[in-house]
This record gives sequence, C-alpha cells and structure tokens, in this order.
Amino acid sequence: MTGFPSNFEFEITALHGRARAGTFNTPHGKIFTPVFAPVGTQASVKAITPAQLHELGASLVLANTYHLYLRPGDELIAEMGGLHQFMNWPGPILTDSGGYQVFSLAATRKIDDDGVTFKSHIDGSLHRLTPEKSISIQENLGADIIMAFDDCPPPGDREYNLRALRRTHSWAERCLKAKTHPDQALFGIIQGGVFSDLRCRSVEYLAHLGFPGFAIGGLSVGETKDQMHAVLEAIDPLLPEDRPRYLMGVGTPRDFVNGVMRGVDIFDCVLPTRLARHNAVLTLTGRLNLVNATFSRDPSPIDEHCTCYTCRSFSRAYLRHLIVSKEMLAATLLSIHNLHTLLQLAREIRQSILDSRFDDFATRFFESEKFQNL
Amino acid sequence: MTGFPSNFEFEITALHGRARAGTFNTPHGKIFTPVFAPVGTQASVKAITPAQLHELGASLVLANTYHLYLRPGDELIAEMGGLHQFMNWPGPILTDSGGYQVFSLAATRKIDDDGVTFKSHIDGSLHRLTPEKSISIQENLGADIIMAFDDCPPPGDREYNLRALRRTHSWAERCLKAKTHPDQALFGIIQGGVFSDLRCRSVEYLAHLGFPGFAIGGLSVGETKDQMHAVLEAIDPLLPEDRPRYLMGVGTPRDFVNGVMRGVDIFDCVLPTRLARHNAVLTLTGRLNLVNATFSRDPSPIDEHCTCYTCRSFSRAYLRHLIVSKEMLAATLLSIHNLHTLLQLAREIRQSILDSRFDDFATRFFESEKFQNL
Repeated sequence: MTGFPSNFEFEITALHGRARAGTFNTPHGKIFTPVFAPVGTQASVKAITPAQLHELGASLVLANTYHLYLRPGDELIAEMGGLHQFMNWPGPILTDSGGYQVFSLAATRKIDDDGVTFKSHIDGSLHRLTPEKSISIQENLGADIIMAFDDCPPPGDREYNLRALRRTHSWAERCLKAKTHPDQALFGIIQGGVFSDLRCRSVEYLAHLGFPGFAIGGLSVGETKDQMHAVLEAIDPLLPEDRPRYLMGVGTPRDFVNGVMRGVDIFDCVLPTRLARHNAVLTLTGRLNLVNATFSRDPSPIDEHCTCYTCRSFSRAYLRHLIVSKEMLAATLLSIHNLHTLLQLAREIRQSILDSRFDDFATRFFESEKFQNL
Repeated sequence: MTGFPSNFEFEITALHGRARAGTFNTPHGKIFTPVFAPVGTQASVKAITPAQLHELGASLVLANTYHLYLRPGDELIAEMGGLHQFMNWPGPILTDSGGYQVFSLAATRKIDDDGVTFKSHIDGSLHRLTPEKSISIQENLGADIIMAFDDCPPPGDREYNLRALRRTHSWAERCLKAKTHPDQALFGIIQGGVFSDLRCRSVEYLAHLGFPGFAIGGLSVGETKDQMHAVLEAIDPLLPEDRPRYLMGVGTPRDFVNGVMRGVDIFDCVLPTRLARHNAVLTLTGRLNLVNATFSRDPSPIDEHCTCYTCRSFSRAYLRHLIVSKEMLAATLLSIHNLHTLLQLAREIRQSILDSRFDDFATRFFESEKFQNL
C-alpha cells in the first residue's frame, strides 16, 4: 500500500478494546481522534463564528461539496484562496464528494456508469458529477481530507447494492487517478448497505487501492442500530489498523460511543446545530425543548455540569425568552451548547481510552439516562 | 439641585468647543463619553453575544421597557435577578420609559392626563402605562439609567407639543416621586418638538427638578437635520453643565458627530444592527449593500482600514455568499462590523476631544465622503 502523502501520518497512541485514540496529521494541524466534526454545509457552521468554533475546541470541520459547487461555486472559492481562507477556518477541513447529496437533495437525477446528471435543488439548473469532476471540485475547495465519489443506494436493497458497489469501486479508482494535489488525503468510501459480506468485499477492494483513510458511507440512513453495529463489527478486522476510519453523518452521542467501541475514529453530524435551530438542547437527562413553558421562570442553565459559554452565562428562562421573541441569538447560544456537548464527549472518550478506562466510560454512559431520548 | 445618588457622578475631563469628554459613573461601571449605546430591544443586541459586545468595547447597552414589559414581563426579569443577570451584561444598562414605543408601536392607544391605555402589538392584549407604572417596571428591570415617562408628540405640531409638554413635565415630577431605588439614575426627558422656545421651557422646568441627567426626546423622528441642530443649540446653554445629556435614538455617524459638536454625551441607535439585517454595511466611502453581485468575487474586507473581527477575518465575497445562502452568520458578522464602526467612531471622537483637536476631526469627517449616503 502506497501513495498517501507523508503529511497525513496517522498514529495510534492508545487502544482499549477496539477503541482507538490517535493523532491524524494534516497540513492544517493535528486531529486528535476520536473526533467529532461540526458541519459547515455552506462554508459556515450555522449561526457560529470560526472564533466561537475555535473556543469550543473544534479541530476538524466538514463542508459539503454539492452545496458549495452549486453556490457560490468551487472556482470562486479557489479564486478566493480556497475554503480555509474563504470561511476563515485555519484548522483541518473535510469535504464529502457530493455523491450523497446528489442522491438525497437533487430534484431529479440519472445515474450511469460514468457519473450522475441532476438538477440543482436551488434553481433547477442541470449539472453533471463524475468521479473526475468531484475530485476537481474538491481540489478547488482545497480541504485537507476529501472523499471519493460514490453511488449511495438504499441500505436494504441487495441487488441495488451489488450494482452500486461495482460502480463505487470503479469510481474510487478513477478518483485516485484524477487526484493531483499532494496536500489532500483522499479517503475511499465503503458501501454495501446492511449486507456484511458486501461491506467486507468493499473494504478488501478499497484497502487494496491504498487509500490513506476510509469512510464508511450509507449508514445512519434508515437502517436499525443493530444493523449499523453489525456492519461496523464485520469490517473492523479487515480495515487497515494504521488508517483513520470515518463514519459519515453519524451521529447522536450514543452512536458516537457505539462507533468508537467498534473502531471508528472520525464522526460528523448536523445534529447539534439542527437541534439548536429547533430549540432543542442535549442534556445529561436527555433532550429538552426550551420553548416549553415549564422553562419560562427556570433560573438554571441548560445543564448544571456543562462548562460551555451558554451554560456559564444564561438561564433557561433567558434562552426561552430569546426563542419566544424570535431573537437570532437563540440559535447561536443553543448551537454553542450542543456543539460543546458533542466535542466534550469526544474529549472524554479520548481521555478514557488514553487512561485505559473506555469500557467503564461506555458502560456508565449507556447505563445513565444520558441522551436516552435521542 | 439635589437628589441624585453619589454613585452616578459625572465628571467632565475635557472640553473642546461645545464637545465634552466625560466619565459617568454607574453601579455597573464607568461610561466614557461621548458614548454610543448598542440597542438590545428585547434584552439581546440582535445576533450578538454579550462576549462579542464586550470584545467590541461596548460599555452602555440599551433595552426597551415597552418590549420587556410585554415579553417576558418585568416581574419575571426581576425574579431572574434583574436585566444585568438575565441578559448577562455586567456593564451599564439604560432603559427607556416605554413612552415612545407606546406611541409608535402599540396597535391602539388612548392618552389622558394620568397615563396611556394601549393594546399590545404582540397579542392585542390591553395594558396601561402611567409614570408610576413605568418607574415600577424599570425598577424591576434594574437598569443603571432609567427614563421618565413622557408624551411623544409629532415634532411639527405646536399646539399638540404645548399640551404634551405640560403632561411630560407633570409626569416627570410623578416619576421622581415614584422612584425608590438609589442605585438607578432617573433622567428627565426634554420635549417640545422642533420649537426652540418650547424646548428651552422644557429644559428650565426639568433642570429645576434636579434630575441627574437629561434625555432629549422627540428628535430623529422626521424633522430636518437643521431643525434638530437648532434645538440642540438652543438648549445647550440652559442644560446643567455637570449632568450627562442623552440624545435618544440618534443616530447615523453624521448625527453622532453633529450631536457631540452641540454638547451631547450619550447616543443610541438600532441603525448598526438593523442595517446588518438588511445586508448593509457602513464603510469609509459610504453605505454598501453586500448582496450586490459586484461583491461576489471581491476578496477585500468590508473596509480595509477597519480592525473589527469581521474585517480581519472575511472577504466581501464570503459575506455575500452567506447572505445569498441565507446563513444566519451573515447578520452576526455584519452587525459586528457596523457596531464596531459606531463604537470606534465614539472612541475617536473622545480621543480628539481629549487631544483638543475635535474641531479638526469633525471638519475632516464632514469633508470626507464618509457616510455621505446614510
């Protein structure tokens, strides 16, 4: 296995069971894993400044190729110095390939073996993505970690997954060939739906191609938790130990702990910021919706044990007032708390692996009521 | 003249022409004047955290009695420890009396000599404000600087202004009597429309009552700039030199400099945050609307000479992208820039007074194209 740039060294510092604590080097800084990546779909983590994101201790941030290709355009971003400069995030950035969004967001789409033709969800204009085009866009965006273009089938359709897998593998090879920038690490994406044999076949095929890291796609899209866990357990022994593993679009705090238990290093999810925009917050005793009248005279913070700016500074009564009064600040303050919750969970998980007590941590985590109702 | 608490000492450090540089002591810290107060109508400066406001160097923040009385209610805020704790602003706060909003926002209103009955603009519920009620609400809110309840007539109607002035003066006396908290400074509000003789009569009447500071109400509501300046010039010699003067709801950068030239110390305006929510920014060469396509590939900051977080961090191209993509971050970043512009102008004005070069500063300010198109 060759072909990945030496500036993307991945070192595993500690193992506890299958949980891994590592350091992933990128041209824009080290990522300490397990890591949770906030999502900045349109080159902005919604309602949060990069300064606030930095204060939250975020390292890796995700942005969406599909969205940025359509608006403002990858060439414009390249002209502005690339995504890091454009959105003023000096740390590591990851972009997806656009594949998943084409399948989930585009108005109409037509797949063939060469690529996908689709209509923009913004203005209905016609576009075509191929493996080569996806890499070209991602090179214009300039993220540290980029993704191979993949076919994203529904997880339970075996025939479809078989066909899609062949395509995903062929596209993965074309992405590797198309890639020209040594300062970007291209991850292969493992597909195969809920079918462990297909997933294993996918890992073997992609591992053989020598990617510097592996993304696990097509999960957290409607399958059961047991199915997700079975897939992770099946592929874990086949994945190269010395490459980072990224579980795409996952997820809740419980999914996060479950993923780490099964050898995953990198996670991303819109959950913290999306919940915030729906007035919901994550707490030790579950999810709260702050618009509830029961909080109107509640002087306590969202979570008494939380050390985020929002919990250090504001009562539930104030946050509810902001929501009811339609003040934009509500989304910012709730996002800060929810992002802190996931980022802090990542730090605690990592520390427990380094201290050889991740098993205990996970047991207590699942026993507690924490996030039960998510 | 007696009756104002010693913790509200106002000291004039330097005079240049009629421009005053002073220090106004409040229980929540010193206000260095001339000062620009950002407006937090509903106990939130829109789209800005208190931490960002602090970083901008804001000292005094304004909140609106009318809005907070209706939602979430002044008693709730008192129960939560008062406005400082509720909105987490440890610095000085000023509340208006609710008078102006009753006249400008309430659905229907009926004025009599005792007070005003009006319907809430939120839910149509019926309410009554009197001088005593306004003071009671403002004592519950707990701002450092509070305002007498006044009748706010249209500026050009002399008969109406004569009647309203009698009422405003009688209400000012009732406010003074109703006030019970020694840690709040109650300002009298000078009315009289565009009629200098009425304005002077108002100053004489209110100065006699011994207020620790004076607000100038009923300006910047449709009269000409010349009319506003004439009023300020007429009342300046009659106002007690040793009390701070607050020009309510004013205003643009030009109004600010014009006010300081005519002896005013305190200003507030929603302009910076309101412009931001309409995608407009203040620059050295005037007002820009960043949604304009001409900025789509503009790599420069809003203002090359500006030192705010937004200008240090982001291009016009990025800000336009946020606006076009309907990202909430746009309002935050544009508000930061616009607030910085006004707060920085206040600091420069103050320094120029301390350096005995305010005349030069003002001359250059008006000669430049700065803010011409506001």
